[in-house]
Amino acid sequence: MSYTHFNVSFPASHQYVAHVEINRPDKLNAFIEGMWLEMKTIFDDLSSSPEVRAIVLTGAGDRAFTAGLDVKAASEGLLGKDSLMGPDSDMARVAVKFRRTVAEFQECVSSIERCEKPVITVLHGITFGLGIDICSAADVRICTADVRCSVKEVDIGMAADAGTLTRLPKVVGAFGWVKEVALTAREFGAEESLRVGFVNAVHPSKVDAVNAALELAALMGRKSPVAVQGTKELLNWSRDRSVADGLRYTGVWNSAAVQTRDITNALLSSLQKRTPTFEKL
Amino acid sequence: MSYTHFNVSFPASHQYVAHVEINRPDKLNAFIEGMWLEMKTIFDDLSSSPEVRAIVLTGAGDRAFTAGLDVKAASEGLLGKDSLMGPDSDMARVAVKFRRTVAEFQECVSSIERCEKPVITVLHGITFGLGIDICSAADVRICTADVRCSVKEVDIGMAADAGTLTRLPKVVGAFGWVKEVALTAREFGAEESLRVGFVNAVHPSKVDAVNAALELAALMGRKSPVAVQGTKELLNWSRDRSVADGLRYTGVWNSAAVQTRDITNALLSSLQKRTPTFEKL
Amino acid sequence: MSYTHFNVSFPASHQYVAHVEINRPDKLNAFIEGMWLEMKTIFDDLSSSPEVRAIVLTGAGDRAFTAGLDVKAASEGLLGKDSLMGPDSDMARVAVKFRRTVAEFQECVSSIERCEKPVITVLHGITFGLGIDICSAADVRICTADVRCSVKEVDIGMAADAGTLTRLPKVVGAFGWVKEVALTAREFGAEESLRVGFVNAVHPSKVDAVNAALELAALMGRKSPVAVQGTKELLNWSRDRSVADGLRYTGVWNSAAVQTRDITNALLSSLQKRTPTFEKL
Amino acid sequence: MSYTHFNVSFPASHQYVAHVEINRPDKLNAFIEGMWLEMKTIFDDLSSSPEVRAIVLTGAGDRAFTAGLDVKAASEGLLGKDSLMGPDSDMARVAVKFRRTVAEFQECVSSIERCEKPVITVLHGITFGLGIDICSAADVRICTADVRCSVKEVDIGMAADAGTLTRLPKVVGAFGWVKEVALTAREFGAEESLRVGFVNAVHPSKVDAVNAALELAALMGRKSPVAVQGTKELLNWSRDRSVADGLRYTGVWNSAAVQTRDITNALLSSLQKRTPTFEKL
Amino acid sequence: MSYTHFNVSFPASHQYVAHVEINRPDKLNAFIEGMWLEMKTIFDDLSSSPEVRAIVLTGAGDRAFTAGLDVKAASEGLLGKDSLMGPDSDMARVAVKFRRTVAEFQECVSSIERCEKPVITVLHGITFGLGIDICSAADVRICTADVRCSVKEVDIGMAADAGTLTRLPKVVGAFGWVKEVALTAREFGAEESLRVGFVNAVHPSKVDAVNAALELAALMGRKSPVAVQGTKELLNWSRDRSVADGLRYTGVWNSAAVQTRDITNALLSSLQKRTPTFEKL
Amino acid sequence: MSYTHFNVSFPASHQYVAHVEINRPDKLNAFIEGMWLEMKTIFDDLSSSPEVRAIVLTGAGDRAFTAGLDVKAASEGLLGKDSLMGPDSDMARVAVKFRRTVAEFQECVSSIERCEKPVITVLHGITFGLGIDICSAADVRICTADVRCSVKEVDIGMAADAGTLTRLPKVVGAFGWVKEVALTAREFGAEESLRVGFVNAVHPSKVDAVNAALELAALMGRKSPVAVQGTKELLNWSRDRSVADGLRYTGVWNSAAVQTRDITNALLSSLQKRTPTFEKL
Repeated sequence: MSYTHFNVSFPASHQYVAHVEINRPDKLNAFIEGMWLEMKTIFDDLSSSPEVRAIVLTGAGDRAFTAGLDVKAASEGLLGKDSLMGPDSDMARVAVKFRRTVAEFQECVSSIERCEKPVITVLHGITFGLGIDICSAADVRICTADVRCSVKEVDIGMAADAGTLTRLPKVVGAFGWVKEVALTAREFGAEESLRVGFVNAVHPSKVDAVNAALELAALMGRKSPVAVQGTKELLNWSRDRSVADGLRYTGVWNSAAVQTRDITNALLSSLQKRTPTFEKL
Repeated sequence: MSYTHFNVSFPASHQYVAHVEINRPDKLNAFIEGMWLEMKTIFDDLSSSPEVRAIVLTGAGDRAFTAGLDVKAASEGLLGKDSLMGPDSDMARVAVKFRRTVAEFQECVSSIERCEKPVITVLHGITFGLGIDICSAADVRICTADVRCSVKEVDIGMAADAGTLTRLPKVVGAFGWVKEVALTAREFGAEESLRVGFVNAVHPSKVDAVNAALELAALMGRKSPVAVQGTKELLNWSRDRSVADGLRYTGVWNSAAVQTRDITNALLSSLQKRTPTFEKL
Repeated sequence: MSYTHFNVSFPASHQYVAHVEINRPDKLNAFIEGMWLEMKTIFDDLSSSPEVRAIVLTGAGDRAFTAGLDVKAASEGLLGKDSLMGPDSDMARVAVKFRRTVAEFQECVSSIERCEKPVITVLHGITFGLGIDICSAADVRICTADVRCSVKEVDIGMAADAGTLTRLPKVVGAFGWVKEVALTAREFGAEESLRVGFVNAVHPSKVDAVNAALELAALMGRKSPVAVQGTKELLNWSRDRSVADGLRYTGVWNSAAVQTRDITNALLSSLQKRTPTFEKL
Repeated sequence: MSYTHFNVSFPASHQYVAHVEINRPDKLNAFIEGMWLEMKTIFDDLSSSPEVRAIVLTGAGDRAFTAGLDVKAASEGLLGKDSLMGPDSDMARVAVKFRRTVAEFQECVSSIERCEKPVITVLHGITFGLGIDICSAADVRICTADVRCSVKEVDIGMAADAGTLTRLPKVVGAFGWVKEVALTAREFGAEESLRVGFVNAVHPSKVDAVNAALELAALMGRKSPVAVQGTKELLNWSRDRSVADGLRYTGVWNSAAVQTRDITNALLSSLQKRTPTFEKL
Repeated sequence: MSYTHFNVSFPASHQYVAHVEINRPDKLNAFIEGMWLEMKTIFDDLSSSPEVRAIVLTGAGDRAFTAGLDVKAASEGLLGKDSLMGPDSDMARVAVKFRRTVAEFQECVSSIERCEKPVITVLHGITFGLGIDICSAADVRICTADVRCSVKEVDIGMAADAGTLTRLPKVVGAFGWVKEVALTAREFGAEESLRVGFVNAVHPSKVDAVNAALELAALMGRKSPVAVQGTKELLNWSRDRSVADGLRYTGVWNSAAVQTRDITNALLSSLQKRTPTFEKL
Repeated sequence: MSYTHFNVSFPASHQYVAHVEINRPDKLNAFIEGMWLEMKTIFDDLSSSPEVRAIVLTGAGDRAFTAGLDVKAASEGLLGKDSLMGPDSDMARVAVKFRRTVAEFQECVSSIERCEKPVITVLHGITFGLGIDICSAADVRICTADVRCSVKEVDIGMAADAGTLTRLPKVVGAFGWVKEVALTAREFGAEESLRVGFVNAVHPSKVDAVNAALELAALMGRKSPVAVQGTKELLNWSRDRSVADGLRYTGVWNSAAVQTRDITNALLSSLQKRTPTFEKL
């Protein structure tokens, strides 16, 4: 597979792992429209690829995971003559078009959450705006010591619309902290991210962080894919629902999943002290 | 505006910030009935005041943010001859009246959450019972090193009814900790509050804490009020709903909000390296 | 009361406290089918026993709270000739039977959450799989310094089905941490458990931890049982619902609860500086 | 009590019944701003009045229950120079003000649903727009043979915002019928209203319909007010929630309500073949 | 199986059908405590019995499906000296005990809804109070021409607590009709029941109605039990949830169910113009 | 636009109306895989086409709206050698693939519900299985006198999975009727469909029914598209949520929508007794 704005590789050192890299480093990996559509294509494909069991998402270059939306490009659109919001445009009709656009945009970010395989992001350098939206949709976040995070949207006069306000409070526990960073756009770094639970671990350099992410992904890849993918699905379903609905869905889900040969395979391997291998999924 | 139990000021040093002070220091700022009704009036007014973009709520005096409900006053009512619960009263009818009263009481505390502007509370000294209900309804909590917090209600034989049991677990992440402090009424201090995420920061003295809160409020006040108020609303809506419902509501909300001039204003200011100013809201 | 797989005692030193001990130490307290049914019977009984106001749940022996499901016993069933999943069995019919079984199994674990009295678990040594399900259904968790926890299920090829995936993210704040430990089955210890809020406290030895749990239970037992049991119920109800529904339910619940004599009792005791005692419930 | 736009009477012939009449017959009882605020005041007062157990809401004059919002008054505001939506106004700021206004407006209509006593509306003649919103918030609807109903809002270029789109599908069963009348604004009459279940009964004349409504209200008024008000509350709560949540809330609600003397009163009266009387509530 | 208050038979004429008859005709089939517990036992057993694919529930004798709760027995308990609600009892403690009782009572009625097989009730003669609760929990209702229904509870001073207020509005479409009959306890008959959709059909005599119910049950019994039981479950799940959650659950449920041999069996039978037979479930 | 399995036309006689016709009449318009994907493409396109304000969906030929899924084609796949469910396939892996397929299939049917414009279906002749799923996702249903409907799925051994079980009970009021037809697959005709509210009207012939549908669509097309599309959205949103959430969303939605020029346009036209025209959307 070859992409315009992303590098997608399958490191031989880490079986069943896909490495997706945002590849626009000269612009701090800032997103233009084609990029988020391509990102969705990638995650939709990986979601059903039998060769892939876990995914690592990183940003190319030394300076940024991503600076977020390419504001310069967006503001040219906004201020330019083709803008939806011309002086004669009807406000309700502009709103309809905006809703369609933002729904599509949200779908692209949600493709990470909806991806059937676990997604681990590595945050380094500048991680602003859309960067936080993307990381919040992932399963695990790992960062470098020099990361600079910001829920940047209020600085450009708007409330974040690609998922940070919905998902970040479900990713970290401290709602007051979320409110502070979202209402002020102030930066926060590695130590603070670790303390509030936004990231799982901090590594001194980008190389270390990416390696740790690949190792973690490979570890997940060595487990039964039936079990791993079911675990991601059940955790995400339960997050949004009552315990009763979570338990019921779990029982229904597992009524098919436990009929897998992976269980006997895992049990026998354990009794025989050997490493199990699992069929593709 | 002049109030009986509260001081409301607009510090010249902090533009767009309102400072609300609970003002019954000789009684540890304990609440009697008129006070919670007045608190609702204040927050309802500030919610729609175009001069105000963020609010700091503190308690007068050195000893307490608030000791909570004025138990002495309440118990005189309860034990006195006008009590709802006389020996001849019908229990179901007493229940109806209690429900009306508690609904009104809850509405007063909820006026802080429903207030369109961010609310920052400063906890110092004794912060018991209703004090925790109030802080849990605010957006950000800052405390002094000497704060003494307690979910005090079980000590007077009842389950907290003004919101602590509903909101506190959505404010901090550790549900087991919430259960411990709610089921025992034991005190907890500044360090513990910071560790579990109940407060965002600890300051050595009340003066320092109030200043920090005012600074934080002023920082929020310098941002676009369209963006800040939308952010508060979307965070609170999403907290109670699924990610899918949060994203959909965000798109609908922003379909009007992004048609503000604040965005072009912010973008142009950023390109021109100057500080934007925003119209009142 | 005498049980096959559990010891249930009522320590004279800790009034109103029941101590339930999983008693199969030679098998690391691993669960076979009869055990979870018996556990439900015990918690259902304690739930309505007027002698009991708080419960401590521990595992017998030095080595384990519980190693979880007895995989050896389970795998003999699974691989044996009486298995549901024989070569001729209809998959949909197997699924129906599995759903019935898992629903019953979940009910047993949920009996801890549904128990009207607070439940405190003490984790020591090996606490794997079902052990995490059980602890997540309890109200407070305390552990020893040597505890070894694991959401073990992916290691045997399945997604956890007795509640961990539903409840653990509602017990700790950091969703990324939950995902990491659930998707990898890696062990985590006391310090990590404390940091993410999974446990409330760490004690050097099992004796210390059990004593701390009994003290905490006894403290809860000295409060009004009307207040304590209402607090547990309202916290659990609110966890799964919006703030608005939490507040409304609280008002309705308390409309009966505040008509208790425990409140005047507590208030008068407080005014008279004496310790209140409360009627059984 | 005396009101500007409404007549409120307590017919001696129908004990415990309040009769509220919209009183602007020369304008087809069309609503101007003061009217909906006054309507809320009336229903809030009647909700807690011990003299009232059921309420009948009708429109004065022969021609209309209500023609809905006074469009002429509204359009003067809208087209006039004080309009929110002037050429220089910021769209996001207009949206904020609109939301505040519509929330207040919705609150006024919702005061009928929230009123603790059953509300029966009598529809006659023109019943357009806001008239359908109001009737949908009531408990029972009765109409005359000549009634002309219309979900009128699309005819003035907007989606209904005072509750019809939310409540009408929960009042009648046939969602396709609701969509047809809401998407076309076509009129429907008495027979159709009865067939789809929008009204409970059709009467030949307004006098007959009002009398039938008063009789029905008086019948409700002769029952235990604890039972009647609980029944309204539990039906409305359950409508919006799962069966499990409905049952749980019912049990909690009744735990106070069944401790009323009304039950023994009703049972003894039944055994003694006499009519019970119940204390005020 | 032999029961005290019920007859349970398996008519040879109707394969896979169980006929459950409430058997206390001299008391109009009124329920005393043992009866509802026994009813739960019966439906729990039938739910998992492989011999049963559909159930018909009727009342013995000519006069009543059931007169509801045995008020005389209940009032003796209530007025007698063992009552929970003695003059010295603490109201909050009474409430706790009431909640436990009503939860158990609700569970017994819910066993009909939770039963994996379709349940068809036949209403004849007096069908009051608990009779409506029971019928509302069933899947299909058929009645005789002489049926007399009443949501009777307000006549004894209480709001219905065994499910009518929660389920009846989800069984019929017309919410205003439900409110009228629930708020007045007035009787309604066969024609009205058919018109509002409470019953599916009216038959002239009890014999005819029971036969029609048995025929309907037998028709369901001739279909694939995997398909029929899945259909009941998915309809009940979806009733309480959003369309999105209904669709998702359906896909998960069917991922096991479609792996049944019943589908190829049914398809081949259809191609070969013969009647399929299905394995037990 | 030209399609393989559908005719899409824009009748000059009915401005702003699109007519979509299922075009496989020799196979009773039965669906094969390509058809549902194409159906989604069509409705997604029409959803955002400014030329279209309402859509009529019909089936080509005299005999059927659609016979549903092409069972013969499906069974060849199922029984053929490429089947997912071969003897060696792992059941859990088959379940994963089935879930992906059914989710895609559901998305295609849901494209009708999600389409921003109202969709009116005309049912004639055989309307089985998927035909009911499709109609239930539409806004309005009109049928011919000779229509033969059936929720056919249990006859082929499965529970309906494309939406009937989720949506049909939200389309008609009588849940018992839905259960009967879904649990037995028995046919129902025009009169019954009208009585339960499944269809809005019955017409003697297909020509009459299609004309009536086009007229209804054209009537919707003459209203403000801002108002009509908002009304569809708000009705569908509110169906799945509480009244409180419906009202809140309505206010937010309308805060942009009421800033349309359509309202002043409609008001002025009304005052001037002329027909308004509205800008495209």
